[in-house]
Amino acid sequence: MELSRKLAEYSLGLAYEDLPKEVVEFTKLCILDYFGSAIAGSEKVPVQMISELAKEMGGSEQAHLVTGGQSSVLNAALVNGAASHVVELDDIHKGSIIHAATVVIPAALAVAEWKRLSGKELIAAVVAGYEVCYRIGEAVSPSHYYYWHNTATCGTFGAAIAAAKLLGLTVDQTIAALGNAGTQAAGLWEFIEDGAMTKQLHTGKAAMNGLLAALLAQKGFTGPQKILEGNRGFFKAMSEEYDISRVTEGLGSEFKIMENSFKIHASCRHTHHAVDLLIDIFNERQPKLEEIESVMVESYQVALNITDNDNPQTQYAAKFSLQFCSALALLKGSATLDDFSDSMLWDEEIRQLLKKVKVVTDPQINASYPKQWGAAVEVRFANGETVKKQTDFPKGDPENAVTAEELREKFLNMTNKYPEKQRHQLADDLLELEKFETVEKVMVTL
Amino acid sequence: MELSRKLAEYSLGLAYEDLPKEVVEFTKLCILDYFGSAIAGSEKVPVQMISELAKEMGGSEQAHLVTGGQSSVLNAALVNGAASHVVELDDIHKGSIIHAATVVIPAALAVAEWKRLSGKELIAAVVAGYEVCYRIGEAVSPSHYYYWHNTATCGTFGAAIAAAKLLGLTVDQTIAALGNAGTQAAGLWEFIEDGAMTKQLHTGKAAMNGLLAALLAQKGFTGPQKILEGNRGFFKAMSEEYDISRVTEGLGSEFKIMENSFKIHASCRHTHHAVDLLIDIFNERQPKLEEIESVMVESYQVALNITDNDNPQTQYAAKFSLQFCSALALLKGSATLDDFSDSMLWDEEIRQLLKKVKVVTDPQINASYPKQWGAAVEVRFANGETVKKQTDFPKGDPENAVTAEELREKFLNMTNKYPEKQRHQLADDLLELEKFETVEKVMVTL
Repeated sequence: MELSRKLAEYSLGLAYEDLPKEVVEFTKLCILDYFGSAIAGSEKVPVQMISELAKEMGGSEQAHLVTGGQSSVLNAALVNGAASHVVELDDIHKGSIIHAATVVIPAALAVAEWKRLSGKELIAAVVAGYEVCYRIGEAVSPSHYYYWHNTATCGTFGAAIAAAKLLGLTVDQTIAALGNAGTQAAGLWEFIEDGAMTKQLHTGKAAMNGLLAALLAQKGFTGPQKILEGNRGFFKAMSEEYDISRVTEGLGSEFKIMENSFKIHASCRHTHHAVDLLIDIFNERQPKLEEIESVMVESYQVALNITDNDNPQTQYAAKFSLQFCSALALLKGSATLDDFSDSMLWDEEIRQLLKKVKVVTDPQINASYPKQWGAAVEVRFANGETVKKQTDFPKGDPENAVTAEELREKFLNMTNKYPEKQRHQLADDLLELEKFETVEKVMVTL
Repeated sequence: MELSRKLAEYSLGLAYEDLPKEVVEFTKLCILDYFGSAIAGSEKVPVQMISELAKEMGGSEQAHLVTGGQSSVLNAALVNGAASHVVELDDIHKGSIIHAATVVIPAALAVAEWKRLSGKELIAAVVAGYEVCYRIGEAVSPSHYYYWHNTATCGTFGAAIAAAKLLGLTVDQTIAALGNAGTQAAGLWEFIEDGAMTKQLHTGKAAMNGLLAALLAQKGFTGPQKILEGNRGFFKAMSEEYDISRVTEGLGSEFKIMENSFKIHASCRHTHHAVDLLIDIFNERQPKLEEIESVMVESYQVALNITDNDNPQTQYAAKFSLQFCSALALLKGSATLDDFSDSMLWDEEIRQLLKKVKVVTDPQINASYPKQWGAAVEVRFANGETVKKQTDFPKGDPENAVTAEELREKFLNMTNKYPEKQRHQLADDLLELEKFETVEKVMVTL
């Protein structure tokens, strides 16, 4: 049977009632975390540009934009998908290297609001969307990730599945939606060289493209049946190596969403291992710049591919500079949203320490990737001391989990542009999402 | 200097006044031919689906849809880009394997109408759009074309450049537009296996995506500077082989649009060589089914990759079946829009002849591809006679050109849903486009 058919049958067959309680609870945390990122990102410059454009283009009032007002579901997916990725605090799945929330949830939410669907329906659609894109991402990881931004490319399938489920598509329509999601899949890493705003376009467009594929399928628009495994399909065209078995192995007997990692630091996930360890060292000794002789970070190759940058020129590029993030963590003891400011970007001490940070690949750490996103750090001090630390699981991984309380705290911090009462109310609502007969009622509290 | 900068500087520097008269005349034929395809395609099922969806989504009244009414420029690019490709009669460039009109012109036209720009400005933008996407396509051909639909992937850059020029972007903004066009470039050939409707989504989305990149760039949205040649850019990610020199060789001293081919038959261009030759044989002898023993078509490998299909199941798949098109041409003496009907698809005689058509690769013909899109046919008759014919240039290639009069005739046929007078008026207007102070005035005659 074609892979798309298996994924479609599984996804359409998945009912809220089939979900174990822990999956429901975890999924609500993912949705809560999505809202935190989307609200924190809504005023950022690239998001505002996309939002302004969407408003100029206009659209029927179908769903809320996190930037204010309502527009078509496609515009809502575009704007909200861009907003929820920009502060780099959205969730991530190690095995597939995908941030699913920022692509799957905006598409699902727009349809659920538009069609006045329930919290339970939204939760089940989000679980299916995560499942599908994580499986496709695992099949092509890590080779696909060298050129392609998995969140955007594989994420498109997840957005399509979540939308297909909420729109009540048939299996054949859902296969077409997957086909036309895959044929739109795009997003090259080239922008990282310039620290350009492109990453937000990727996630917004992936949410929009997946939704577009599902909306067209509902009208009978046909698509390729074997978009994944076909001779000119997604796997062969876009991945040097891939493992087809990963798409369906264990499908139905596990919930991939439970493998999700949450981000605590506001930088690229590939810097978190080192940031965790260097914050530990900061907490132990609060070193001053002149006391530090050198910092060595050993990690996996992909981390270096994406984050080896010893001279970031923008706040955004700083989030993707392992050297910058390491210097920041060791000198300031944190890597929060507020830390990635222009004054910190050009901070004299950070710039000096940054030059002393060496980043290299360690063969053993590399061999465990992407199962483990690990690192070792070695800090040499001027007094001759050396401190070494190593981690296999940055904070927020399932193996080194954050609590629901910590995630709620993170959410409240990220939404501090709202009054206290409103933030708490929104958190309460989202953590009781299954009780809402229409998701729309949560959206209007925005 | 980065390739994007060279292309941006060239394109923004190109003024209508710099264009030789023959380039202006030829470009107007391209625009005329685009309108013929768009109008003929406007009522086709996949186009209607995309149009309905665009209307449901809504949008500001900025530009006309060929399916009726007005919407945002992004919706206009999407719908008109889908409409102008569906009847498979739009123009094609051999060297880059791109149908430029269906991607570049809808994007350019939407902006020109919205911003009330002149016919001259539109013409210069179209010339630049063709130039850029043809050059990028030549650099990656033929290897890119195995997985990727060049018209969609490379076409996105052409739409972005034409829009950038009409929006009056700076060089840096145009570089960003090219970067974010390239990072959205998508369109896999996998749909061809099912004869799915995806091809229209490709061209519509390419027009829309290129325009989106330009509109965002105007707001200051940044993009990758080296989207083509960068380490994780378009060339390395999406093409097994590529020749960077093709992007700039002769840039400014020639006009690639003059290499354009026009299509006379309503099927995939990779069938036209054989169709031309078999129509000649039909004209010479009007053979009956029982008189034909076998048909052999020898061509280049890419033609077989795309069109080797001895059992097409849809009208659309029939246009992409070299066997079907060959049988049609030899039995009916034509391959017009009306020939690709359901009754012809299941015509008993065509189905019988189709089984007698053998398609193979000829090494010599293959070696000349993509400079020459040639074929040889050999028809064996029951009476023992054999007729052989060969061509290097199907009708409509610059080397085997159609006249302006023939293109006007083609346009009048393709727009026969309009009253006679209106069709002639539109043709007259389009062939005098440089006299219009606002393109908008032509659009309202639709």
